[in-house]
Amino acid sequence: MKEIKIFCPASIANLSCGFDVLGLCLDNIGDEMIIRTVAERGIRITKITGADLPLETEKNVAGVAALALINEINPGCGFEIEIHKNIKAGSGIGSSAASAVGAVFGINELLGKPFSRKELVYFAMKGEALASGSEHADNVAPALLGGFTLVRGYEPLDIVQIESPSELFAIALHPQIEVKTVDARAVLHPMISLKSAITQWGNVGGLIAGLCTNDYELIGRSLQDVIVEPLRKVLIPGFDDVKLAALKAGALGSGISGSGPSIFALCKGEENAKNVSIAMSENYKNTGISFDIHVSRVNPIGVKIIN
Amino acid sequence: MKEIKIFCPASIANLSCGFDVLGLCLDNIGDEMIIRTVAERGIRITKITGADLPLETEKNVAGVAALALINEINPGCGFEIEIHKNIKAGSGIGSSAASAVGAVFGINELLGKPFSRKELVYFAMKGEALASGSEHADNVAPALLGGFTLVRGYEPLDIVQIESPSELFAIALHPQIEVKTVDARAVLHPMISLKSAITQWGNVGGLIAGLCTNDYELIGRSLQDVIVEPLRKVLIPGFDDVKLAALKAGALGSGISGSGPSIFALCKGEENAKNVSIAMSENYKNTGISFDIHVSRVNPIGVKIIN
Repeated sequence: MKEIKIFCPASIANLSCGFDVLGLCLDNIGDEMIIRTVAERGIRITKITGADLPLETEKNVAGVAALALINEINPGCGFEIEIHKNIKAGSGIGSSAASAVGAVFGINELLGKPFSRKELVYFAMKGEALASGSEHADNVAPALLGGFTLVRGYEPLDIVQIESPSELFAIALHPQIEVKTVDARAVLHPMISLKSAITQWGNVGGLIAGLCTNDYELIGRSLQDVIVEPLRKVLIPGFDDVKLAALKAGALGSGISGSGPSIFALCKGEENAKNVSIAMSENYKNTGISFDIHVSRVNPIGVKIIN
Repeated sequence: MKEIKIFCPASIANLSCGFDVLGLCLDNIGDEMIIRTVAERGIRITKITGADLPLETEKNVAGVAALALINEINPGCGFEIEIHKNIKAGSGIGSSAASAVGAVFGINELLGKPFSRKELVYFAMKGEALASGSEHADNVAPALLGGFTLVRGYEPLDIVQIESPSELFAIALHPQIEVKTVDARAVLHPMISLKSAITQWGNVGGLIAGLCTNDYELIGRSLQDVIVEPLRKVLIPGFDDVKLAALKAGALGSGISGSGPSIFALCKGEENAKNVSIAMSENYKNTGISFDIHVSRVNPIGVKIIN
């Protein structure tokens, strides 16, 4: 029996302009998982702490992702999975992605790495599909690969890794309210104006150029969303005010993390990030809604083994 | 009296996924202009060769752009402009942009460079507006700045320069047919699906990342347009066939240059570009339509003084 312990990072998807394609990996917010090789074939979830989630393999995000992987290579052994959740389900910072990613990464390590991290995205997406109803990679890709990731396309799956400028920090403020992914999807319009789409892809181009050239101001100017944020922000009480507070405190940009309710901000430097975090906290207290807030550098590595 | 001679490069706008925001500067295709300082204030177009264009300042793209510039700073002299066109009007490789850019660049040089190249984009756009009916920067920006340019946004105008990978070559095949910009605009739909917009901005992100990291394969995979090309290609006889011929001969990608009718391809290396150019020429002969074809490295500098 061999056993490893894994840190499964949270992630911020969309990043304003990059709806459904962009994401970044957080560093000090994440779940832990223990995965062990056992003689009996198959996948068993043996323990879950920190969340009320199903132990049945087929009903658990980590279980489904793990099954997708072992069904591909049919190893001569099985795996037990313990999940210790720190990322709250439905927070909008990639809780289900962290579980899916931890499972496929851990099993791949125990099997001697038959797959690259990029190849693991495919299996982790199968777990994500259980949580959200559709196979998407904008959280699992950054959690697996670290830094920023771009899902260039799905047919075929094409994930582009983009290194983060070294001084980039992220803040995630999680209001303790529930925004269901299905509701966050329902407010979107299936048709959008060509004009606003052009604005959006100009900003996507600007954000990628800014990340590639360490141009923090360009990153800030590009963190705009004229399509999704105007529709979704109504689901998040106090959104406009806390975003404004972040910008006033010097954040490069701010927006909705994933499908919400978490609100993210990006900052240059740790000190600025701490100031922005204080400003956002002070501001959000006005809503009367409980919240968590996290400050993290962008995680350059992604999911990893810890002792 | 002081006089300078200027090379005004052609340019390729849109580049498949980057409709209305991306462009690149060509190197060995362009107009020449002679601009001289004269005592009498104002702008006079004294000579035009190679095209049947109006000499009246207010009806000429170069004249309108030049007026926009001198109205801003009110110099104590005037300027005479000679225009020697090599880029055919309506070809889709930035003919009007070249004229607008040459005028503002030349006058700015003669005045001792009161404006940066980036600042000149604003004045050149005023000339473009005369030709196309709207102020757009996707041709004038690359012609002024060289390399690739991204128009991140117009409010305020935000032009991002992106250096070209050194081995990148462009081909422009110009069928001798007329596609009016107004007709090319008319086939577009004002509303598009969110799904196709996401595909498009994934590709814009991929193209920028590919350019920034010299990843030629990623550049190639990103040169896709699911929104504009399917609607506009019907205006260009033989488009699908010649695009396929380019790709078969090893082009990274191919699409419509600007609003057409020119067809562009991007290639890695001069040898491959020449082969692709031959394959496109051979193929396009089948249409029976006369055409020009140009092979050019991406011009890293943009408009320049010659002699």
